Amino acid sequence: MFERLPGEITVFEVGPRDGLQNEAGQVETADKVALIEALAQSGLKHIEITSFVSPKWIPQLADGLAVARQLQLPSDVQTSALVPNLKGYEGACAAGLKQINLFLSASESHSKKNINKSVAEALSTMKEVAAAALADGKRIRCYVSTVFACPYEGPVKPEQVVMVVEGLLQMGVHEISLGDTIGAANPRQVKEVLDRLSGVVPLPRLALHFHDTRGTALANVVAGIESGVTIFDSSLGGLGGCPYAPGASGNLATEDLVYMLEGMGIKTGVNLERLVDAGALAEKILGKKLPGRYLQAALATRAKACAG
Amino acid sequence: MFERLPGEITVFEVGPRDGLQNEAGQVETADKVALIEALAQSGLKHIEITSFVSPKWIPQLADGLAVARQLQLPSDVQTSALVPNLKGYEGACAAGLKQINLFLSASESHSKKNINKSVAEALSTMKEVAAAALADGKRIRCYVSTVFACPYEGPVKPEQVVMVVEGLLQMGVHEISLGDTIGAANPRQVKEVLDRLSGVVPLPRLALHFHDTRGTALANVVAGIESGVTIFDSSLGGLGGCPYAPGASGNLATEDLVYMLEGMGIKTGVNLERLVDAGALAEKILGKKLPGRYLQAALATRAKACAG
Repeated sequence: MFERLPGEITVFEVGPRDGLQNEAGQVETADKVALIEALAQSGLKHIEITSFVSPKWIPQLADGLAVARQLQLPSDVQTSALVPNLKGYEGACAAGLKQINLFLSASESHSKKNINKSVAEALSTMKEVAAAALADGKRIRCYVSTVFACPYEGPVKPEQVVMVVEGLLQMGVHEISLGDTIGAANPRQVKEVLDRLSGVVPLPRLALHFHDTRGTALANVVAGIESGVTIFDSSLGGLGGCPYAPGASGNLATEDLVYMLEGMGIKTGVNLERLVDAGALAEKILGKKLPGRYLQAALATRAKACAG
Repeated sequence: MFERLPGEITVFEVGPRDGLQNEAGQVETADKVALIEALAQSGLKHIEITSFVSPKWIPQLADGLAVARQLQLPSDVQTSALVPNLKGYEGACAAGLKQINLFLSASESHSKKNINKSVAEALSTMKEVAAAALADGKRIRCYVSTVFACPYEGPVKPEQVVMVVEGLLQMGVHEISLGDTIGAANPRQVKEVLDRLSGVVPLPRLALHFHDTRGTALANVVAGIESGVTIFDSSLGGLGGCPYAPGASGNLATEDLVYMLEGMGIKTGVNLERLVDAGALAEKILGKKLPGRYLQAALATRAKACAG
């Protein structure tokens, strides 16, 4: 174990999209812009800033175009947005984005419930969008949900994941993010799925997207690193990712990920103190505590320092 | 990785002591008894039920003797208590306990601040208690605090830990629990410390005691398992362990640990549903939410099932 640790890991920040789309209240466009700029100031280079899903479904992100246009970021920050279809793709193009992020489920039941399509139908719809994006020279990432477990079917067979990943590679997707949508995976399962995929897809094209619903996210990251994956998704303060209840956790918190990786001597390029600043800003904007462990410990330490 | 996973892991429950000693309010003796009995009903076989520290310092656990006497547990449940000195040892004997748990720090500054003794002085005091306990045929566990990092000194040198562990082995301590007191360790560091200790102490005599302050506890457990450790401490719902602030986390939650291990095919003998029952009871007794991830997800699922 840890005999061939990577020197660097890429952190892909999903908070502004995956986090804010789950918020009940409307966040001001200016606040979203400030939050994304704070994330970039921490050193994050890959930030999913919004989605171009119909505002009928996700009114929280209806201002995606305005957000993209108002952002002032260093030129080496790669922004992207979630795109469900050709109409969404047009939105992302209007916003000037060079990367789009597609999504589908690995399990049939989740696919049906989420987008009312079978997995095969989802792949087919996606082909049109991918073809358009490739023709325009865009970079394409695709999220695969329910890779390890489905809320309706339980554990998902690795063969199903292999089939989906092969379909995505065939249509020219550059990066595939494997999601533990309900936070049920364990490190052994992560290793087994990645062992299966290692002959199917070059590991540098894989990302892992863990949820901390049951506290296992960083343990799963360790298994992912040991299996050769070098891109991990996370969300500021653990925002979003369909938490079950107030106070419960969804997405892996970016601070927890960066803290562990840097402690292990793996470079992320992210400054933890600036990340905590961004977390404090997010708590102020949303008017609530975020579930991230490191963030709460750091904010409590800061409060103590102020008081004493 | 995971080529030689153990078939079983021992879970050592510290909630009734390490958890309740940090509670501001007084918990009724009958409630403590009910909680410990609920923990045993989940299948836990090793439960630290109280401490025999002076009630001047920890009034929350002043009823240790009454708790021990009122408990009705299956005969294969091994109860134990924290013991700081000979007087505490007498309390544990009066309570009929067959195991006592000693403690000291690996770092000088933490030792001074915590018990106003140097590490050498702490080892020396402990010798008296250990000699008495061995003469009485008791089993002795010892917690070593600040093994990975000290709140005053930062990272702790592995040589310091080796010195302390050697001292404990010489005085006949049966089991040594290495504590990440401030929850700062990372998996690489865990492996490095255990690599250093593997020539000093037989691994079956080591336990690991992680805190989830920064979300890394289960990742550290994975590194511990890979290094050959098979005993892990945890606390119901993540109770206790000096959390920095309300809502922040201290001890690794027993449910999170059991969920991950069982998912990996490692037997713990613990029934997760009964553990969640115990967690619900603890929340009722304490009148607050506990920080454990799995517990919150499970309780939210139960609430949904009731509502719908």
